[in-house]
Amino acid sequence: MDEIKKYIDGNKESFINELKDLLTIPSISTNAENKKDIEDCANWLQSHMHDIGLENVKTYQTEGHPIVYGDWLNAGDNKLTILIYGHYDVQPVDPLDLWNSPPFSPTIVGENIYARGATDDKGQAFVHLKSIEAHLKVKKKLPINVKIILEGEEEIGSPNLDGFIENNKDLLKCDYVIISDTAMYDYDIPSICYGLKGLCYMELDVTGPNKDLHSGSFGGAVENPINALANIITKLKDEKGKILIPGFYDDVIELTAEEKEEFRKLPYNEDEFIKELDIEEVFGEEGYTTIERKWARPTLDCNGIWGGFQGEGAKTVLPSKAGAKISMRLVPDQEPEKIEKLFTDYVNKITPKSIKVKISASHNAKPAITPIDNDAIRAAMKALEHGFGIEPVFMREGGSIPVVNTIQDLLDAPSILLGFGLPNENTHSPNEHLNLRNFHRGILTSAYYLEELSKINN
Amino acid sequence: MDEIKKYIDGNKESFINELKDLLTIPSISTNAENKKDIEDCANWLQSHMHDIGLENVKTYQTEGHPIVYGDWLNAGDNKLTILIYGHYDVQPVDPLDLWNSPPFSPTIVGENIYARGATDDKGQAFVHLKSIEAHLKVKKKLPINVKIILEGEEEIGSPNLDGFIENNKDLLKCDYVIISDTAMYDYDIPSICYGLKGLCYMELDVTGPNKDLHSGSFGGAVENPINALANIITKLKDEKGKILIPGFYDDVIELTAEEKEEFRKLPYNEDEFIKELDIEEVFGEEGYTTIERKWARPTLDCNGIWGGFQGEGAKTVLPSKAGAKISMRLVPDQEPEKIEKLFTDYVNKITPKSIKVKISASHNAKPAITPIDNDAIRAAMKALEHGFGIEPVFMREGGSIPVVNTIQDLLDAPSILLGFGLPNENTHSPNEHLNLRNFHRGILTSAYYLEELSKINN
Repeated sequence: MDEIKKYIDGNKESFINELKDLLTIPSISTNAENKKDIEDCANWLQSHMHDIGLENVKTYQTEGHPIVYGDWLNAGDNKLTILIYGHYDVQPVDPLDLWNSPPFSPTIVGENIYARGATDDKGQAFVHLKSIEAHLKVKKKLPINVKIILEGEEEIGSPNLDGFIENNKDLLKCDYVIISDTAMYDYDIPSICYGLKGLCYMELDVTGPNKDLHSGSFGGAVENPINALANIITKLKDEKGKILIPGFYDDVIELTAEEKEEFRKLPYNEDEFIKELDIEEVFGEEGYTTIERKWARPTLDCNGIWGGFQGEGAKTVLPSKAGAKISMRLVPDQEPEKIEKLFTDYVNKITPKSIKVKISASHNAKPAITPIDNDAIRAAMKALEHGFGIEPVFMREGGSIPVVNTIQDLLDAPSILLGFGLPNENTHSPNEHLNLRNFHRGILTSAYYLEELSKINN
Repeated sequence: MDEIKKYIDGNKESFINELKDLLTIPSISTNAENKKDIEDCANWLQSHMHDIGLENVKTYQTEGHPIVYGDWLNAGDNKLTILIYGHYDVQPVDPLDLWNSPPFSPTIVGENIYARGATDDKGQAFVHLKSIEAHLKVKKKLPINVKIILEGEEEIGSPNLDGFIENNKDLLKCDYVIISDTAMYDYDIPSICYGLKGLCYMELDVTGPNKDLHSGSFGGAVENPINALANIITKLKDEKGKILIPGFYDDVIELTAEEKEEFRKLPYNEDEFIKELDIEEVFGEEGYTTIERKWARPTLDCNGIWGGFQGEGAKTVLPSKAGAKISMRLVPDQEPEKIEKLFTDYVNKITPKSIKVKISASHNAKPAITPIDNDAIRAAMKALEHGFGIEPVFMREGGSIPVVNTIQDLLDAPSILLGFGLPNENTHSPNEHLNLRNFHRGILTSAYYLEELSKINN
């Protein structure tokens, strides 16, 4: 491993330059106008995977954006086979005016590289390509069998991934799945994430009168769809953050006393958290700590709202339409389809007769808890300690990675969530970035992990 | 008057063609990018007023958009002097995709001409220019002294009109002010409007965390400014439409039994009203009829709302900011400044500590009741009967025309509100239009009115 470490240390700069190239491609999956960029990104990855020595590299077309696959399977049957999963698509960039540098012109400031996708998930996925490269360039082989898939639809709910996995079970067959798409607990606290929230993302489209009206001539006679929408949103959550949809909490598994105790032991400074976000106080369901709410309690947020006149100045309109995007983060054992139905029934029930509401489901993801009592987790703990020189912790996260469930269900393989991002790297926000020291420590960890996994008998 | 009527009838088509030219100019006062169009419109009107024979025609610059003035003052001291007020600025045109023809390409369909400003207020103001033209071309004189001002900032609250009137009291001195910026009660029901609502237009800008956050990682820990804004909006009005701001109704003058009785006598079909707007039911404060609420009860409407992700697809953001425009329509004796303070105090009180709210006043207008027991009103009734061949009615309106109060206060002259628009002509909405038969009947009415006013001794 010394030679491999030397290779990784020696190529620090060139790895960063390659990452810059990858981050330059605006592969936003939700925007139709970025379709060509998504294809460019898949092509870039295919070439790169081929160049570092992966075999059977291929771009698989789907009904949406393509999936890039590669493998190296010459370690022998007595060695484990892992599947590394990542995604090369990114979130939209608006509001653009809040970025300090253009989102697709990667810019290094201090230890960080700023660009959309830096941490979610191009940078983290690239970690594994570099560790594979190090092994293959130095040793001409990998210590275990490795498969890798990089998808282009994670940020839109992976609509074509299930079908792809279903149709390629042999291709993707593996013992464990490695995913680096989460955050470490903190800068010097390497972590394994074992719990992820699910998601139920809905849209409400409210219609009042059949055309925009003059608020003077029609105010007081006709219900205003914005006011009505505000009333609906208000009825979804009480003022302490408890969700009011009947049945919503029915399937929620409460945290164990042991988990609560583990969470409590983690270093956490609420005053600093408050100061960093420039808020007066935290907000959320009573009876739980902030970490418990973030990691293990379901939440509901309005992700977008619109209606009427949004321009400069004043327009006295009573609009015809208004709308909102609302997402719920779910915890085990909440089922997104059941929550979708509870939400829909409730909104229909509380919608007044004076307006019409169209309720649509945008995308769903199941919550996940991964097993932490297995050899691959123990190997990951060792690899993290090698890579970072610090003992790692276990944590949960509020985000969703639907593929964890898909893979568990379809490939019957547990996931290992090895996050190299940091919680404040502005995922989904302006000025997204990745700490380049963690990028480097991540590559070392991944390289050690391949080695540690080779010690496990298959 | 026969010759004048003949002139007006004979020029029906050319008057419409001239109106089309005027409607082609996109004189949107609220948009900075239309500043040049506003100037073009003022220039067009100045030329036109000069061409029809008005004297002392001049464009007065203000700190905002210009005011165009003209007069004809040769009728003698024993004749009345009237001031005709109108405005040449128009509302914004969005949502543009709902227009059946481009808003600044005037298009005639059936009896209507479609264009932004057709009824509010270019078309209605133009009525008086054409009646003045008819008198001056046929008789070489007007039967009374006439002054006319056309302003370019009505749709943004006339910020420079008060100052202009204050500084030009002698120029504008008059016995009565004639304003055509309201709607008739119905197609064959010519009307004089004697009551207008006031306006208090506010903007709320809500800030939660100092940057957009990932709703998975931060949901449950940080208040969402959209949800908080929805809560604030919900607390402004109960579910029946009663406004919950403490003290809001303190100065409201209740309708008299006589007024209620007059309203009840007007032809009104609520089922048709509901059907035309494609709603299931009307909405508003309990204990009042729809006409009473529209004309004589204060209202509160959200005119616009925004925040977070409004694009196609799903973005799981917990946004930093959200905002809304909220207007209240006021009735006598509510004072906009007092209401602004009550609104501000209440919103500050109900805003949770977890977010910050910036409350700004956009523009204010006082409500108005004009006297209906005077010679000029009686002359207007006669002129409407001549122009339409139908006996007119008295009505009130939910819109605001701030100049009515300004003129009452600064020039000590009562206003006569002679509306030639119709209630369903989509003022402030897509597909604004003016009925061209009413445009013609309006010109006749205005011509007869000058004649009727000449019978009053000064």
